[in-house]
Amino acid sequence: MKLSIILVILYITCAWVKSNTEDPPPPPYEEFYYMQTLDHFNFYNKGSFPQRYLVSDTYWTRPTGPICESPVLFYTGNEGDIVWFYENSQFVTNVLAKEMGALLVFAEHRFYGETMPFGNSSSLPENIGYLTSEQALADYAQLIPAVLSDLGGSHCPVLAVGGSYGGMLASWFRMKYPNIIDGALAASAPILYFLGTNANSEGFNEIATIDFAETSSEGTCATRIHSAFNEITQMSNTQNGLNVLTKTFSLCEELTELSDLINWLEAAITYMAMADYPYPANFLEPMPGNPINVSCSLLAKETDNIQGLVQVMNVYFNSSGQAGQCNNVSVYTTGALGSDGWDYQACTEMVMPISANGVQDFFPAAPWSLSQLTQYCQQTWQVTPNPNWITTYYQGQDLSQTSNIIFSNGVLDPWRAGGVVSNDGGNDIITIIIDGGAHHLDLRMPNSADPTAVTNARVLETKYLMQFAQEASFKKQLKSK
Amino acid sequence: MKLSIILVILYITCAWVKSNTEDPPPPPYEEFYYMQTLDHFNFYNKGSFPQRYLVSDTYWTRPTGPICESPVLFYTGNEGDIVWFYENSQFVTNVLAKEMGALLVFAEHRFYGETMPFGNSSSLPENIGYLTSEQALADYAQLIPAVLSDLGGSHCPVLAVGGSYGGMLASWFRMKYPNIIDGALAASAPILYFLGTNANSEGFNEIATIDFAETSSEGTCATRIHSAFNEITQMSNTQNGLNVLTKTFSLCEELTELSDLINWLEAAITYMAMADYPYPANFLEPMPGNPINVSCSLLAKETDNIQGLVQVMNVYFNSSGQAGQCNNVSVYTTGALGSDGWDYQACTEMVMPISANGVQDFFPAAPWSLSQLTQYCQQTWQVTPNPNWITTYYQGQDLSQTSNIIFSNGVLDPWRAGGVVSNDGGNDIITIIIDGGAHHLDLRMPNSADPTAVTNARVLETKYLMQFAQEASFKKQLKSK
Repeated sequence: MKLSIILVILYITCAWVKSNTEDPPPPPYEEFYYMQTLDHFNFYNKGSFPQRYLVSDTYWTRPTGPICESPVLFYTGNEGDIVWFYENSQFVTNVLAKEMGALLVFAEHRFYGETMPFGNSSSLPENIGYLTSEQALADYAQLIPAVLSDLGGSHCPVLAVGGSYGGMLASWFRMKYPNIIDGALAASAPILYFLGTNANSEGFNEIATIDFAETSSEGTCATRIHSAFNEITQMSNTQNGLNVLTKTFSLCEELTELSDLINWLEAAITYMAMADYPYPANFLEPMPGNPINVSCSLLAKETDNIQGLVQVMNVYFNSSGQAGQCNNVSVYTTGALGSDGWDYQACTEMVMPISANGVQDFFPAAPWSLSQLTQYCQQTWQVTPNPNWITTYYQGQDLSQTSNIIFSNGVLDPWRAGGVVSNDGGNDIITIIIDGGAHHLDLRMPNSADPTAVTNARVLETKYLMQFAQEASFKKQLKSK
Repeated sequence: MKLSIILVILYITCAWVKSNTEDPPPPPYEEFYYMQTLDHFNFYNKGSFPQRYLVSDTYWTRPTGPICESPVLFYTGNEGDIVWFYENSQFVTNVLAKEMGALLVFAEHRFYGETMPFGNSSSLPENIGYLTSEQALADYAQLIPAVLSDLGGSHCPVLAVGGSYGGMLASWFRMKYPNIIDGALAASAPILYFLGTNANSEGFNEIATIDFAETSSEGTCATRIHSAFNEITQMSNTQNGLNVLTKTFSLCEELTELSDLINWLEAAITYMAMADYPYPANFLEPMPGNPINVSCSLLAKETDNIQGLVQVMNVYFNSSGQAGQCNNVSVYTTGALGSDGWDYQACTEMVMPISANGVQDFFPAAPWSLSQLTQYCQQTWQVTPNPNWITTYYQGQDLSQTSNIIFSNGVLDPWRAGGVVSNDGGNDIITIIIDGGAHHLDLRMPNSADPTAVTNARVLETKYLMQFAQEASFKKQLKSK
């Protein structure tokens, strides 16, 4: 049970890969702490905690009067160390900031990185209750005026930027606090991957499957992975079969539960789809550029389907099969992310129903189960998930009452299934589909191997963000007269 | 100190006068309880409480299919018993509901009326912390889909309606939850009476003063009340003066603090301005129609200014000066409202800076003091007011990102000083100024004595609410196709 939850964590976070070593470094930043309100919705709870945020004024055109035209690019920190996000969003830090003459402010999300309201005890159920997206947005809403006031630029346009869960926060920030946020870039933000929307809960796994299928015109790679899963499932019926699987996948411990292996394989495959970048990128172990193409080529060289799947896993885990090394089926990632935090969020409001049907996707059929999730969450965190709260509190499917949000989604990215991919009538809701793009590729440093679509997307994003900033600046000037 | 806080309570609540006995009764309703989440922003807090709400389907055109065109009129309950609001908003219950074929849902605000999350212990500081407008709106957002689902009409347009603080909630509900609320009528909602907006903190007392001044072309009534306050202040310098004042105002207890008398007089005067309705209405004791005109006529018959002020007070308190009766300077109202609740709200987020300057208004100068308020609130509730939170969490002055809200304000109503009286560029933000109208006169039962302006206002309000409902119904139909 634990594994399927961890899977959800991974899905949303693990694409934060390290930047290429050849990339120029991001501009220098200063680290600050703001004494933040612990509970914005209960005045009797008087707690506060130091919230970390990073500021870089390297490219900032400092305003000379009360009105400034150069915006603040505010990164709505998500589930991890904010320095990590700062170092991995170089389109924002190195390109956008420079072109716009913008001030960079990267705020760390409560209960992640150094921003632990209860220090080492932050993960205790009674403490982690203060971890919600609503409290996090209220943090940001309170932080921004304070930062602007410190910098003497209280009338600057403020644009929210984020990727993945950070992108969800960026778009929600604009929806809920249009008085503070003038526009947003929400990259690969699956804000519709919740019950009660038109999103297809099977879409995540379908897209991952298509990514593998499209490496050849016949879809052979995907078909053979599908067969491999079927064969694995059959083998697991006997003790001998489990023993063979243990050896085949070089597992450190004897396999006893099929689901442990399946979840581990699924995590690696969907991760590879999310991080299917066109150049080498480092995560755990280095992955080559276009890892799906690479892994499907290796698979093609094997006549046995399961051996082919082992090759696919090798590309992701890299170390598998090497002398003296073995694979731990409960380890999908470095653990550098705040997995406790995301596990808790997935157990409360971030209830994203991902299922596999084994027909449109190559995984063993696995319907999403709220009751299983509930059982896990009650045992682990003493909380009950509310799958309807996000679409109640935020706007859900209906974006007609918001504006100035760019939603970008990569065609290769499984999370596109929960993204906003068409404008449903809202004002200045820009949707960008990036052909050949994986999970928020657009936020990464431009690279010569980039598909044309992401280069075009960045041009559009820059154009619209500039337009949002100019409109906001103009409005603020009108008001101050 | 306590008094000035109670004054704030009064200001916002006490205009909920009983309906005229000649008015037709409101349509019958059923009373329900919904098991509501105690803390919408902390999943570890598992408490819940029964929230009362009233439903009347007397005039409802029940939908025959999944789409319904007749709306839900949802009253965003404010600081009092919801039955009281139901019985005193007859434009909504008797007129609007009938014309629109609407379902009426009146929801009680947490910590008021019968909706006490902790029963008799609800006012303990550690319990009353759960009283905030954000939690109340989240209650309503969660309640509405549940009610609609019970009634089988899940696609009905929903319009929020409210007066005073209830009007603030109605407009904020539309701003924050446009996915749930399709439009709002916010009657006499002073959403701008906060720091950091363009609202004039002295406006409240200025308008009350003007109401009295305009009873004659020379403004004599206001001038003489001003003089009376000056004379009272002078008299209070001696023990003999205090004794005379005690007798003059028929006080039950010997006057020791001038401020007790001043606060009591100010409450009565501003209350009269708020409830300056054109027909007799009952509150505490019956008040005549146009009570300011009546009281100024009585004042005019007195040569002594202070005796004139006594006459003004008589119109409000009515009982003053009668045999065997005396006035208690700490009693302004029946106490039927949940004054603990509002006192707490005024000590936390509902920090409305009302001041008197003694020049544009006839009161003794009294600048608003955050430090005094803070001292009181820390002593009484162990909380510190945050005067900036409301304009941070809600949209403050900038309504450009919302739509479909009608803000109505009466010219006679002191709260107009904090109302939205002109459209600052938002879409379908309708502002209606009601000449000769007091505090949300428009929500009351139409009356032959009504000024033309309120009759016209109700026609406009009906027209726009119908338009909001039709647009919403049309959109919902489009989406369901």
